[in-house]
Amino acid sequence: MPPSKGHAQLGRPLPKLFIYTSIPIALTLIAHPLLPLFLPQDFLNKFPLPPQPTYPALQANVGFALLAFIGAVLSVPEVGEAFIAKGLKGWDQLKKGSNRNTGPWIPECLGLPCASLYLLLMMLFIPFPFSHIFQGTNGNGPGREAFPKGELTLYLSSLLSLLTATMLGFIDDLFDIRWRHKLPIPLIAAVPTLVVYYAEGGWTWVVLPESLGKLLSYLGFSGWEGTKSIDLGFLYYVYLALLPTFTTNSINIVAGVNGVEVTQAFIIALSVAFNDLLFLPIWPRWLLVLLGNVGNPDEGRMLSWAAGEVVKRHLMSLYFMVPLIGVCAGFLWHNWYPATAFPGDTFCYFTGMAFAAVAIQGHFSKTMILFFLPQIFNFILSCPQLFGLVECPRHRLPHFNPSTGLLTPSRVVFDKAPPFKTRITLEILELFGLTEIERTPVHEEPSKSGESKPKSGAKKPTRIVSASNLTILNYLLVVFGPMHEQTLCLALGAVQVASSVLAFGIRYGVGSLVYGGDRR
Amino acid sequence: MPPSKGHAQLGRPLPKLFIYTSIPIALTLIAHPLLPLFLPQDFLNKFPLPPQPTYPALQANVGFALLAFIGAVLSVPEVGEAFIAKGLKGWDQLKKGSNRNTGPWIPECLGLPCASLYLLLMMLFIPFPFSHIFQGTNGNGPGREAFPKGELTLYLSSLLSLLTATMLGFIDDLFDIRWRHKLPIPLIAAVPTLVVYYAEGGWTWVVLPESLGKLLSYLGFSGWEGTKSIDLGFLYYVYLALLPTFTTNSINIVAGVNGVEVTQAFIIALSVAFNDLLFLPIWPRWLLVLLGNVGNPDEGRMLSWAAGEVVKRHLMSLYFMVPLIGVCAGFLWHNWYPATAFPGDTFCYFTGMAFAAVAIQGHFSKTMILFFLPQIFNFILSCPQLFGLVECPRHRLPHFNPSTGLLTPSRVVFDKAPPFKTRITLEILELFGLTEIERTPVHEEPSKSGESKPKSGAKKPTRIVSASNLTILNYLLVVFGPMHEQTLCLALGAVQVASSVLAFGIRYGVGSLVYGGDRR
Repeated sequence: MPPSKGHAQLGRPLPKLFIYTSIPIALTLIAHPLLPLFLPQDFLNKFPLPPQPTYPALQANVGFALLAFIGAVLSVPEVGEAFIAKGLKGWDQLKKGSNRNTGPWIPECLGLPCASLYLLLMMLFIPFPFSHIFQGTNGNGPGREAFPKGELTLYLSSLLSLLTATMLGFIDDLFDIRWRHKLPIPLIAAVPTLVVYYAEGGWTWVVLPESLGKLLSYLGFSGWEGTKSIDLGFLYYVYLALLPTFTTNSINIVAGVNGVEVTQAFIIALSVAFNDLLFLPIWPRWLLVLLGNVGNPDEGRMLSWAAGEVVKRHLMSLYFMVPLIGVCAGFLWHNWYPATAFPGDTFCYFTGMAFAAVAIQGHFSKTMILFFLPQIFNFILSCPQLFGLVECPRHRLPHFNPSTGLLTPSRVVFDKAPPFKTRITLEILELFGLTEIERTPVHEEPSKSGESKPKSGAKKPTRIVSASNLTILNYLLVVFGPMHEQTLCLALGAVQVASSVLAFGIRYGVGSLVYGGDRR
Repeated sequence: MPPSKGHAQLGRPLPKLFIYTSIPIALTLIAHPLLPLFLPQDFLNKFPLPPQPTYPALQANVGFALLAFIGAVLSVPEVGEAFIAKGLKGWDQLKKGSNRNTGPWIPECLGLPCASLYLLLMMLFIPFPFSHIFQGTNGNGPGREAFPKGELTLYLSSLLSLLTATMLGFIDDLFDIRWRHKLPIPLIAAVPTLVVYYAEGGWTWVVLPESLGKLLSYLGFSGWEGTKSIDLGFLYYVYLALLPTFTTNSINIVAGVNGVEVTQAFIIALSVAFNDLLFLPIWPRWLLVLLGNVGNPDEGRMLSWAAGEVVKRHLMSLYFMVPLIGVCAGFLWHNWYPATAFPGDTFCYFTGMAFAAVAIQGHFSKTMILFFLPQIFNFILSCPQLFGLVECPRHRLPHFNPSTGLLTPSRVVFDKAPPFKTRITLEILELFGLTEIERTPVHEEPSKSGESKPKSGAKKPTRIVSASNLTILNYLLVVFGPMHEQTLCLALGAVQVASSVLAFGIRYGVGSLVYGGDRR
């Protein structure tokens, strides 16, 4: 790191060989399904192409994802200096020799080039699924992937939401908007998605668990027996509007350690894509049954009446998620420990909006929320500090110990004995191992008038001096002890992966039991 | 203007009374068509509403335009200070006591809040024309304004292009991109519009003038008789892709005088909207015939087969133009002499893209180009300087004379006699009154060896010392003499209005003769 130029190394180079091999691969993936349309038949007879894929647009999509990866890796170092020059820079609080006045500076808000690249590729991708070009090019009959126009409007409205989120995120990063003004940003970005959802005559019915009807009739509410779904109407839009606020902010508040925001988004995107793949009719039935009866066999993807609709929804979701995985991986290359680029709020708004958009358009918001279990845990754990039960310092990211090079939990320090509500909250959390409390024996102070203290007892009286801050990152440090910054990011990634496994268990195991097979 | 704070006055207030009266008017215009849908029938029977308009969505659109106006007026001063703080500021080169080091600073790039506001309103407007809400609410049968889904995709892709143009414009303003990198910006912004145009199976046929077929057959090319249109195919996309580059840059290069960019956009938007209105079936036929046979009576709007399609295209264009007029007027309030806010490239990209998008979607790109006559004149006039025939200084905006307070043409100065190609170009331009040349007698220098000069002649030999810069603004100053900055802006506005009148004459007078009635 040359501190001479006042900033850290700008990005890390990718092996040239990798770039030179993967660009042709990406272009081949994209061009291959197009070739039969542009090459003359004579030529094709002489030099037959490899057989066309079942999902030509999806194959092209994978090519675009590869381009997104390479593009992110190449573009982030290019623009870093310009960002620093405009004050879009930060200092790494968890590094030796770094400070707020002299840096070394790391460019901030590099979610912007990543998001721009992603959006440009997604725009160029439009003709693949949404035009006539693939009708009848594969053996599965015309139009398997040719979406009707209604789907194109959903796609475009998602892009509009993503672009709005990116732009507002960038404005936020640049002008450092106060958090009160930040709050509606995901709501505004969701406007195109929601308005088009409405204009298209959006579905506002919610499927009820079978047991709920039984429960309600047991409780004396008649008329609920056999009710499988209810129309939430306007309330459904409120729910949908809150979804992007949740997906955006829940990633944004688990931050502060190199690579941690991008790792979350990366694993969530992988999980969503894996879930989408399960709905494509490409798996042998025995495999699905073997995988713990993934969904029960009555799941939509196996029923012919719903198959087309459900497959299309999940294909659409894949089109968004696969390039997102590419761009996240590309950015992670630079954001990984030791970070040479920071994501900024732009990145969190952009990825959060992507998750919300596919969940809204694909009708799987509940499944999506399941993939956010670590973030939900973090939010619930944070509540005592967010709502004033326990003091909340401005930064709660872990503490860096320069002598060991390891991270330890950051702490909220109490100068005097904390009030009763704080004490009881912390002690309950301590009971579950969620926080680490430091106590000091109370000195026998000269008793003041009116004070009655237990002068003697079985236990020596103590008071709380400090407690670890209530975030998932500090919690991991409490449980596993001090660790290296890179290890902590890996640990959070592992938790995210484990949660996704759990989420699949809930979705396909418990979910099938609760809801029965009739699911959208 | 308090120079104590280092910047000029931020915006000028609008009379409060105007704001307090026009907001309710705007909301009424928007809500009125919605009321029959939400109020109970009993209530409506007791308190009948005023009759519903023929075009309820258009009425709401006018309401949105009013909101855009008020919003632009109110938001520009709000954000000015933050923009200056981030270096988005300029000094006014044509004002007394203003200089590049101390200002007073005027916030630059305030096209951003205007464009954001416009786009948000356009998103909120989506349900009005594109959902089921107005089907059958007026006496004209269901669906007169209810567009099919194909139109919604065009609308959304236009919004995507506008948002992309706005974002790239802002990035350009912020990072001060070199002009070589700027050039593709309108092309990139046009991607969504063009891709969706393609995916929708876009029309690539061009109607030929009747006389062209005759001319070609006269020249010996057979087979052209009676050919009314040809399919340009891929070339048509090249043409469409160049359109936004033209509309964007042609406004951007007529700049430098307070209010001049916004005035151009404002008048062009008004012209387009007026043209759109002519296609709505709301005019009595005698009026159309009276207006110099505006279009001939065979124009699409009068033929039942094409009426629906053509009316819809122009309604769509109106939906974009009317709020654009509102937002331009609102911004002009602050940008008018003496300017308290500058538009930045953001504004030019945004408005230019809006004109290109409606022209592409509405199939009236040729008519649109006609509304840019002053800009085309400016471009042609600039060519000698752009292509190196005449030296081109970095800034060509008019020169401010502090003693008179008036503007005079800025000049390109030649330290030594200009080369032949420059001299001849300037002299031809002088012949047409397009530039003002200053000459000086050539001193009788002591003749050097080998030089043969005409020692005596009828005319005393002179050489060119300077010439007025080749822009439309300097041209106006050459023709009408020095004038005040505000007068110059008004003069350009007058030229723009006169050109629009001429454009209508060409479009409906000459155009009908050349093309015959079969026009899209």
